Amino acid sequence: MSWGNKVRLTVFGESHGPAIGAVLEGLPAGEPISTEEITAQMARRAPGRDASATPRKEADTPKIISGLLESRTTGAPLCAVIENTNTRSGDYKSLRNVPRPGHADYTAYVRYGGFNDVRGGGHFSGRLTAPLVFAGTVCRQILRRKGIAVGAHVLSVHGVTDPPFCPADIPVSLLDQLSSRYFPTIDPKAETAMRAEIEAARQKADSVGGVVECAVAGLPAGAGGPLSGGAESLFSSILFSIPACKGVEFGAGFAAAELFGSENNDPFFFDQEGKVKTKSNRAGGILGGITTGMPIVFRAAFKPTPSIGLPQQSINLKTGRPEQLTVKGRHDPCIVPRAVPAVEAAAALAVINLLP
Amino acid sequence: MSWGNKVRLTVFGESHGPAIGAVLEGLPAGEPISTEEITAQMARRAPGRDASATPRKEADTPKIISGLLESRTTGAPLCAVIENTNTRSGDYKSLRNVPRPGHADYTAYVRYGGFNDVRGGGHFSGRLTAPLVFAGTVCRQILRRKGIAVGAHVLSVHGVTDPPFCPADIPVSLLDQLSSRYFPTIDPKAETAMRAEIEAARQKADSVGGVVECAVAGLPAGAGGPLSGGAESLFSSILFSIPACKGVEFGAGFAAAELFGSENNDPFFFDQEGKVKTKSNRAGGILGGITTGMPIVFRAAFKPTPSIGLPQQSINLKTGRPEQLTVKGRHDPCIVPRAVPAVEAAAALAVINLLP
Amino acid sequence: MSWGNKVRLTVFGESHGPAIGAVLEGLPAGEPISTEEITAQMARRAPGRDASATPRKEADTPKIISGLLESRTTGAPLCAVIENTNTRSGDYKSLRNVPRPGHADYTAYVRYGGFNDVRGGGHFSGRLTAPLVFAGTVCRQILRRKGIAVGAHVLSVHGVTDPPFCPADIPVSLLDQLSSRYFPTIDPKAETAMRAEIEAARQKADSVGGVVECAVAGLPAGAGGPLSGGAESLFSSILFSIPACKGVEFGAGFAAAELFGSENNDPFFFDQEGKVKTKSNRAGGILGGITTGMPIVFRAAFKPTPSIGLPQQSINLKTGRPEQLTVKGRHDPCIVPRAVPAVEAAAALAVINLLP
Amino acid sequence: MSWGNKVRLTVFGESHGPAIGAVLEGLPAGEPISTEEITAQMARRAPGRDASATPRKEADTPKIISGLLESRTTGAPLCAVIENTNTRSGDYKSLRNVPRPGHADYTAYVRYGGFNDVRGGGHFSGRLTAPLVFAGTVCRQILRRKGIAVGAHVLSVHGVTDPPFCPADIPVSLLDQLSSRYFPTIDPKAETAMRAEIEAARQKADSVGGVVECAVAGLPAGAGGPLSGGAESLFSSILFSIPACKGVEFGAGFAAAELFGSENNDPFFFDQEGKVKTKSNRAGGILGGITTGMPIVFRAAFKPTPSIGLPQQSINLKTGRPEQLTVKGRHDPCIVPRAVPAVEAAAALAVINLLP
Repeated sequence: MSWGNKVRLTVFGESHGPAIGAVLEGLPAGEPISTEEITAQMARRAPGRDASATPRKEADTPKIISGLLESRTTGAPLCAVIENTNTRSGDYKSLRNVPRPGHADYTAYVRYGGFNDVRGGGHFSGRLTAPLVFAGTVCRQILRRKGIAVGAHVLSVHGVTDPPFCPADIPVSLLDQLSSRYFPTIDPKAETAMRAEIEAARQKADSVGGVVECAVAGLPAGAGGPLSGGAESLFSSILFSIPACKGVEFGAGFAAAELFGSENNDPFFFDQEGKVKTKSNRAGGILGGITTGMPIVFRAAFKPTPSIGLPQQSINLKTGRPEQLTVKGRHDPCIVPRAVPAVEAAAALAVINLLP
Repeated sequence: MSWGNKVRLTVFGESHGPAIGAVLEGLPAGEPISTEEITAQMARRAPGRDASATPRKEADTPKIISGLLESRTTGAPLCAVIENTNTRSGDYKSLRNVPRPGHADYTAYVRYGGFNDVRGGGHFSGRLTAPLVFAGTVCRQILRRKGIAVGAHVLSVHGVTDPPFCPADIPVSLLDQLSSRYFPTIDPKAETAMRAEIEAARQKADSVGGVVECAVAGLPAGAGGPLSGGAESLFSSILFSIPACKGVEFGAGFAAAELFGSENNDPFFFDQEGKVKTKSNRAGGILGGITTGMPIVFRAAFKPTPSIGLPQQSINLKTGRPEQLTVKGRHDPCIVPRAVPAVEAAAALAVINLLP
Repeated sequence: MSWGNKVRLTVFGESHGPAIGAVLEGLPAGEPISTEEITAQMARRAPGRDASATPRKEADTPKIISGLLESRTTGAPLCAVIENTNTRSGDYKSLRNVPRPGHADYTAYVRYGGFNDVRGGGHFSGRLTAPLVFAGTVCRQILRRKGIAVGAHVLSVHGVTDPPFCPADIPVSLLDQLSSRYFPTIDPKAETAMRAEIEAARQKADSVGGVVECAVAGLPAGAGGPLSGGAESLFSSILFSIPACKGVEFGAGFAAAELFGSENNDPFFFDQEGKVKTKSNRAGGILGGITTGMPIVFRAAFKPTPSIGLPQQSINLKTGRPEQLTVKGRHDPCIVPRAVPAVEAAAALAVINLLP
Repeated sequence: MSWGNKVRLTVFGESHGPAIGAVLEGLPAGEPISTEEITAQMARRAPGRDASATPRKEADTPKIISGLLESRTTGAPLCAVIENTNTRSGDYKSLRNVPRPGHADYTAYVRYGGFNDVRGGGHFSGRLTAPLVFAGTVCRQILRRKGIAVGAHVLSVHGVTDPPFCPADIPVSLLDQLSSRYFPTIDPKAETAMRAEIEAARQKADSVGGVVECAVAGLPAGAGGPLSGGAESLFSSILFSIPACKGVEFGAGFAAAELFGSENNDPFFFDQEGKVKTKSNRAGGILGGITTGMPIVFRAAFKPTPSIGLPQQSINLKTGRPEQLTVKGRHDPCIVPRAVPAVEAAAALAVINLLP
């Protein structure tokens, strides 16, 4: 179902249907939207644009069919449609009976009584992150003019790590720089090592997962609210809508569970301009569900792509018997770098809904 | 704001105001509700009921003032009010100007322009988990009659660990047993070691955090949906509404990011009754946002209680100068055992909203 | 279920249960709330305060148990509880089997499988307008400080009419004056004639309905939105939640259907201060779902109270046979004057949700 | 913003932008959808298909781009796009400064700071009923297979009337027959007289309004709920989203305000099959917000089309001076017959959200 109370996102489409797309309701009117920026972010998400990614090339050119006039938002719902090209109906039909482990094939079969579009994962395809990236890019442009920047990097791939953000001091320039790259890491050597890890998985016909770390800088203090109105609830509900995301943590996150309170509490101070800040930022910019004015920092864990070339144990729902399954075709051995723009997009949508 | 589409929860109250409470809308009619069970669960959450907890004893007897007739739900909104006893208005007034690190004092000050009730944390107090536990216990009784059981244990306190659930095989009896205990662990020795860890923190006037692991057994396959309608989004949005929760992961969670796809994918099989199951359950019972029929398994990380007796660095919002702060009174050095019923309650609310 | 996106109202309680009440979420913090004003508005709604009304006297003193500190809103959910006094469990038990015509007895029986609280109409009682009036009065005080006034009068009772508002020119002073009276009419003679009509119905052991006309003055232009985000949708969805309301119209309403476009269109002009106005206000202050800056004017039709003393034809759901029903006790022959504060309250809630 | 809790409708598009359309979320999977039926209903709404209507012919062929596979719903969001053909950007530009009386030109200007698409009314155009009719027709097909029929007729045009429904006895065949016609009336003579009235208005370069009466037959008892969860709130909130709708009433509606309770209460009886019915149906099939099992009957009032050829008094927002306005082009003198399918569509959407 659609998401958001202030700026509402509705995503539609199936991987091998005519088109996918998004509707954004509640956008402020008069905001200039750059299609170049949209194209650039869509390209970061699209497979085949980068050496480490899947071979299927997707055009992914969103066509905005409402809500934009002379490159500015009109205030009416903004709808973009992305046509599916190169769809192959024949490829996936047998999947109906033999569900791929780790995919939504079986659960969607039960949920929709077998009527869901199973081709390419249908509405459950990772391809559905394209409308999310589109929507997030629209929101980011609006936020950027308010001084709010969103950026993320690949924190780890299969255990190979990049250094984490220094959470109490994240320059906007770093976020801007990260959010323009295909395989963003803080340490260039990390990228090299991660690419090697991904290539090794590819050669085994296997796949690997990883963690994306994201930050939002420039947010004022005082946005959000207690209990289910809190920033963490808002962020996590859209982050977990990204396929393959299985964990979300804010600030010190799970590591906070191993600290003393005296270590985890962030001491307050006034900076030179008299602004309230904290020396550390283990809260990840959120206390009591409300922004502190420090950067929001969170991490999202992605499981390894369930699509692998190795034979797997499954079942045949028709015959009621076990069946070994080997999924043909080429697979993307790691979606983590391409998940970065989706995470940033989700963060931008959360922020635009968090602001008063 | 209130939470839930099918069964909707509204929580109200401030720690030292007249009362706190909850309204549950959309409950099915005719469901018997045991007040003994409610009392038992409320006691698990209340401080001072257990040796390891805080000295302030709270009666926490919810008075149901609507929606229940002759111990059965009427289908109308069910409201329960819990009076605040032993409130001390004088204790906390100075906190208005000197925010406690790690608390919502500063963020609530900004959010509400200084008009929020600062006494005891006001609406941000951990005490607000009492209405959540009440609401969850109502839902659990309804779910239990459908064969759905919820139970959690303390997985870790300050790095001291209990063995994790064996996620593909969690007996309902284990969940029932855990959910009746004050300090539930799977291994009794873990409880002893954790209590020692907590006692050590208390003696230092410090605090420690931990991780709660929770499971839901007996759920049918096919509940939930894709993208923001997914089970993970639903669960996380209510889990992060528990104060001090900073991380949530499902199934293998963050650890999945270090696995190969061939390791992380759960192979399907038919059990002896012809039911579809998976051999492992690294998906945590959820694929594509939809339940697989295997237990839902997740973990929630809690930061150490920000209330500590040690002196801390803060600021004075009135004078604009740094100020050292020593919070008087006795502190609960670890809220993790008491967070267990809150996590179970959140899970029950998520499940009752997830079911068709 | 609860209502409102910005300021959210949750109403709970059953007529003869322990209490009824309301929770308001999303109120701005720091707003002074006068309990005198609340008491005054509650009295307008309560039966037995006015010569024309029912004999049962209800205390209706809301006890605010959260969200208010030193008479100002804290920004946390504001909950008020109104105890039910003088409840008589025995009176209504036989109604379970023989539904009263025009009441919700039968439909609630089907909806809740017979588990609903049938005493005094339970959650369907007109008494549930008390929490609405409470909530509306809180909102009105906030709006009044922004120059927005809400007021209504009894436009008709059983065909006896008061003159309608002159919709393009409604002084705030008139609205303030109307909203302080028990039986507000613009023409004092109308009140006399309506009271006579009500008294005549009482003597026949029958009841009469009527129409309430309400206006909101002082709203700026530009609030609302197109389609289902429109002001009419917002107002009507809360107005129809008042029991016995069966029709709602804005501006010229149903009469507009008999006009030419050239008659119904309101010509624009600049007033002496250069403000855009319309000469007439057949739009009722709303065009395209958005406020024009002219007063919002609407009418709500109330059916005659279904509770009458005359014998009526019903059925016995247990025996499956027809049964004649004579409802004992004294009945309020006309709830229309007491519906006025409920309509004003609904309007205030709609306005506070409409404003940006 | 989007509408509906179970089946959610999002409408997008501007009259002279690239396209308009709708997304329906939450539809059950596996439902066969006939595009012939969609085309037929779209034609009823489209101008220029019928002698009495406007000359601009709109193709209005919705292209379903998601959620449908082999003519059955997949359970994923169903999106349809309707391209705008024959758009003329030049026609309406001057309207930006001189708002048309009775239109949303001025209010949208204020709401969106002048950035809204003013061409042809933009997002406020009556053309936006096309996605509504599309969505409603999808829902109607699903409802029809459950024995639920929706149908409406033109009850009045500028005071010329058709006989009302006999509300306690509305055959499904009558509804089916009405909902297949371009100018549905119960009495064929009424159509003739109404067409004459419309033609007279056209010749004066003026317009006329009217009332649509709609019924839903075949609904079971027990759907809906009290207060803001009631059927009237649900229906009215979507009905008032139809442009030009200014009044909604259920059952006896405003006329109930002139009846005695003894006249307005509908006596219960058991029919020959033992089903509970009411002899009359002044409740319009709804008591306490819950369906009685009798037909739902309501009326929606439409103001005369604000677009007229006569000169009108307006203002120039740029110069700050009065200005006379004559809107060029041909105008539809009465949209009421074309509003019939929109009312039926709104009713179908309300019903599919009302059902448990």
